Amino acid sequence: MRIVVTGGAGFIGSNLVDFLLARGHHVVAFDNFSTGRTEFLAPARTSLNFTMVDGDTTDPDALTRAFQGAEFVYHLAANADVRRGTEHPRKDLEQNTIATYNVLEAMRANGIRRMAFSSTGSIYGEPEVFPTPEDAPFPVQTSLYGASKLAGEGLIAAYCEGFGFQAYIFRFVSLLGERYSHGHVFDFFQRLRQNPHELRVLGNGQQRKSYLYVQDCLDAMQVAIDHSHDKVNIFNLGTDQSCRVVDSIGWITAHLGISPTLNYTGGERGWIGDSPLIELDCSRIRALGWTPKLTIQQGVVKTLEYLSQNLWLQDDHK
Amino acid sequence: MRIVVTGGAGFIGSNLVDFLLARGHHVVAFDNFSTGRTEFLAPARTSLNFTMVDGDTTDPDALTRAFQGAEFVYHLAANADVRRGTEHPRKDLEQNTIATYNVLEAMRANGIRRMAFSSTGSIYGEPEVFPTPEDAPFPVQTSLYGASKLAGEGLIAAYCEGFGFQAYIFRFVSLLGERYSHGHVFDFFQRLRQNPHELRVLGNGQQRKSYLYVQDCLDAMQVAIDHSHDKVNIFNLGTDQSCRVVDSIGWITAHLGISPTLNYTGGERGWIGDSPLIELDCSRIRALGWTPKLTIQQGVVKTLEYLSQNLWLQDDHK
Repeated sequence: MRIVVTGGAGFIGSNLVDFLLARGHHVVAFDNFSTGRTEFLAPARTSLNFTMVDGDTTDPDALTRAFQGAEFVYHLAANADVRRGTEHPRKDLEQNTIATYNVLEAMRANGIRRMAFSSTGSIYGEPEVFPTPEDAPFPVQTSLYGASKLAGEGLIAAYCEGFGFQAYIFRFVSLLGERYSHGHVFDFFQRLRQNPHELRVLGNGQQRKSYLYVQDCLDAMQVAIDHSHDKVNIFNLGTDQSCRVVDSIGWITAHLGISPTLNYTGGERGWIGDSPLIELDCSRIRALGWTPKLTIQQGVVKTLEYLSQNLWLQDDHK
Repeated sequence: MRIVVTGGAGFIGSNLVDFLLARGHHVVAFDNFSTGRTEFLAPARTSLNFTMVDGDTTDPDALTRAFQGAEFVYHLAANADVRRGTEHPRKDLEQNTIATYNVLEAMRANGIRRMAFSSTGSIYGEPEVFPTPEDAPFPVQTSLYGASKLAGEGLIAAYCEGFGFQAYIFRFVSLLGERYSHGHVFDFFQRLRQNPHELRVLGNGQQRKSYLYVQDCLDAMQVAIDHSHDKVNIFNLGTDQSCRVVDSIGWITAHLGISPTLNYTGGERGWIGDSPLIELDCSRIRALGWTPKLTIQQGVVKTLEYLSQNLWLQDDHK
């Protein structure tokens, strides 16, 4: 099958490209390289079944051309800067909401009706139910990122009803693993390499986060697509665990063999719209037979090993 | 207080303009007259406290200029063509989702932090719970209109969290009353005037709908704003009743004194994305002391009296 992956040069996207190529598909990676990396696609480029398209999801024509002949689209491209949404509210609107509309229209123009979408646990805002199931009480958004993903989900579901699409919507916790290149663990690792003596931590460090290892995530998406056949298939993807920010800092400092002073900025939230607790109820995907292979701690350690072996990623970000 | 009403020349908007002028406010009506009517603002124009701005919500600069000096914005302007969403999916995106973003940014540019938003019961898609409360299970969208209003709600809530806004989000059932100029009752009335002998009815006529009289709706919005003081205040607005499409047809034919043959197209839904039942749980707004003065039937009859006295509205639509 010919499959398009928007954001195909990103952390999750490039791992998905490798995953799909290994299963014999022809894969088109569509990416504007704003955060994606050509280095991540080095293995893919050795395959004759791989096509790279340098394009932007805000460009409908580029999408329509790239989608020609495809049967399935993974729409992963997004502005994933959850934290700084209020600094540039237009970015989430354009790169997430409008971009998703552009993807849907490019699919329609090419007669493609099946897709998967990377949504987020942030869509639950500050939920009242933990762990939070897919059918939690109608949430109130607390971040522009969450709002833009909610808008994307809504559009996709409406296209399923209105145009006979079939969609897989995955609400991720934060992912970790090979090619991980932004987020808590990345930031802490980078700053501790620069200054191993002290670390500034946003909030009180007690915010609970949940992480999932990227290969476990790819397995879960495949299980959902293979075994769930509704019009709109919505799945939380995470581990049935969470850790505190201080836990992940502990694992990082242990890995680096250092004992920095931790300076907390205080408060329950690291930033406006930060959720003091994200913990998703993943029983729906587990009921299909999927289970994560790595614990959160194992995922963090795996990530630290990758980051230690790929210091160029750190240096690029300075 | 200086108050802006986007969509101020529309059915609900123009009634709201009169309502606010009667309470001593200075009111700016912002409308592009795509479905709004200058005739609806005839009473308002006799007031020195009224300003009309002919502008489009897709024009950020026009909004920013119109909002100068205002303290509160009612954002009612929208493409409200629920039924034909799939014929022009871009319309809901531009006129509802992006327009709401433009309104929020124009507010921010003018330091305005309080607003009300006209959302819709369609946002619940095909709910599993009836009557449907505000915190119903996370819904799956079934129409582009619902999806665009969901996107608007999400943006507004994120602005409340990120920029210190306070918002009132009202999820309306269909409204009826003076200046009502599109929807079921309007269409049936118009077609029966043209041909009193037969009427084609989309679906099987058993779809349950809920209606609220526009003056009851305005009272409810005021009660919410006066008595609810959260950051994000979400209210269903409707009657605790519903009627079938055949019921409203019965009231219309009785009012007109005719007995047409009814030809049903069949099926549970009148159109793709039509909901066979909309019935909202309005106990949240009722708990603040509000109660509707008219029943659904009284609202329909009031509307028919208005339409009979304002046949120019029908003729314009031919």
